[in-house]
Amino acid sequence: MSPAREIPFPGCHMSFPLAVLVSGGGSNLQSILDKIDSGALPAEVRVVLSNKPDAYGLTRARERGIPAVALPHADFPTRAAFDAEMVRVINAHGVDAKVGAVVLAGFMRMLTPEFLRAFPQRVVNIHPALLPSFPGTHGARDAADYGVRLAGCTVHFVDEIMDHGPVIIQAAVPALPGEGGDALAARILALEHCIYPQAIGWLAQGRLAIEGRHVRLTAPAAPAAAPLASWGGAERPYLVSPGLEPGFLPR
Amino acid sequence: MSPAREIPFPGCHMSFPLAVLVSGGGSNLQSILDKIDSGALPAEVRVVLSNKPDAYGLTRARERGIPAVALPHADFPTRAAFDAEMVRVINAHGVDAKVGAVVLAGFMRMLTPEFLRAFPQRVVNIHPALLPSFPGTHGARDAADYGVRLAGCTVHFVDEIMDHGPVIIQAAVPALPGEGGDALAARILALEHCIYPQAIGWLAQGRLAIEGRHVRLTAPAAPAAAPLASWGGAERPYLVSPGLEPGFLPR
Repeated sequence: MSPAREIPFPGCHMSFPLAVLVSGGGSNLQSILDKIDSGALPAEVRVVLSNKPDAYGLTRARERGIPAVALPHADFPTRAAFDAEMVRVINAHGVDAKVGAVVLAGFMRMLTPEFLRAFPQRVVNIHPALLPSFPGTHGARDAADYGVRLAGCTVHFVDEIMDHGPVIIQAAVPALPGEGGDALAARILALEHCIYPQAIGWLAQGRLAIEGRHVRLTAPAAPAAAPLASWGGAERPYLVSPGLEPGFLPR
Repeated sequence: MSPAREIPFPGCHMSFPLAVLVSGGGSNLQSILDKIDSGALPAEVRVVLSNKPDAYGLTRARERGIPAVALPHADFPTRAAFDAEMVRVINAHGVDAKVGAVVLAGFMRMLTPEFLRAFPQRVVNIHPALLPSFPGTHGARDAADYGVRLAGCTVHFVDEIMDHGPVIIQAAVPALPGEGGDALAARILALEHCIYPQAIGWLAQGRLAIEGRHVRLTAPAAPAAAPLASWGGAERPYLVSPGLEPGFLPR
């Protein structure tokens, strides 16, 4: 083996580096950490950033020894200056234009085109609605108010328009009239915790190809083609497409 | 039995009268007729109207001996005059504000508020998308172009905004990148042919209650509560909410 192939940090060489951006509790961050712990997701969270110093997502990171960086956006003169500092911090932790990904987990600020250009096709987001329905800050509540019978969530690549980029995976659940936005949001969140780690896993495996607005998922190396969809059974129905792979199904 | 309860037209007394409006082929009209023939749908198509004299839906009706009325909209001086004549014809065939329903099956004209007031909460439509995503004339194609991973169809009560009224039932199917709008539309159409007769069946049974934007489905008299959702299996996955009842499942 040549010196160039030696492993500088044992345990890190096979994992896909992630920078996770949070503004709040970061339950999706937790679901990613859980799937890393379970062995299903070959990734490593290198840094967690937040524009809110009191975001609980930062605490989750610190408790695991993950670098947690608060960047209060009001401390920066411009959005561009704020985003430039985020890029600098993320790069410093091993995620850049060619390696790793930036994962938005309830990060409530729009990113500048400059930020997105620093991580081309490597910034992903999750939204609690079947996009393009119900973009914005209250997707699940808006769906409940509208009276949909199927609600859900979407993981997508981020582009310069809010909740708009190419779709990686979507999951649907029945919505019940009168159940209210909070109850619906909770059932959607349980699926978010499956589809987001799954999508990041595909990204880590190099299995996602963007063709215009379409994201093609290539088959896994083994053992079989990805299922078209998953289903939770009559007691807990849902539909996910592309289908969840072993290790990412709901408990 | 009192004279008032005598049956003026044997065979008609238990069926829910429908007026079906078409502009084209009327495959959803055919699915309704098929479910009537199978005994699953206790309804009767009393008249089929079209603004297009050459709509194949009119031929489908004539071949079954159902009154088929062409009303070329260009023959009327105003939209109001056109709609008033439609109301007159529909009323003359036994569908009015209190009895029966008006079913839009690919009818490509907006209805006036006056028309809707003539059949309050009794006009239904089907749309080949998971509303509020992709309203308009090319729902399935627009969904394919957008790159959604879940597409579907929606049956809703009609209000004065296009593709907007309270939702009765929705069905989702996986969308495959690269399959194209026509292939996706065909898979959606197969579900349309299940959910539209099902929704009309609930309406005929008096089991739909509109509460603001929410449609509540009351349980059937027998034998059990409606399922939350239906699923087509790994080979043909879909999710329908509320669930399809016996007689309405895909073949």
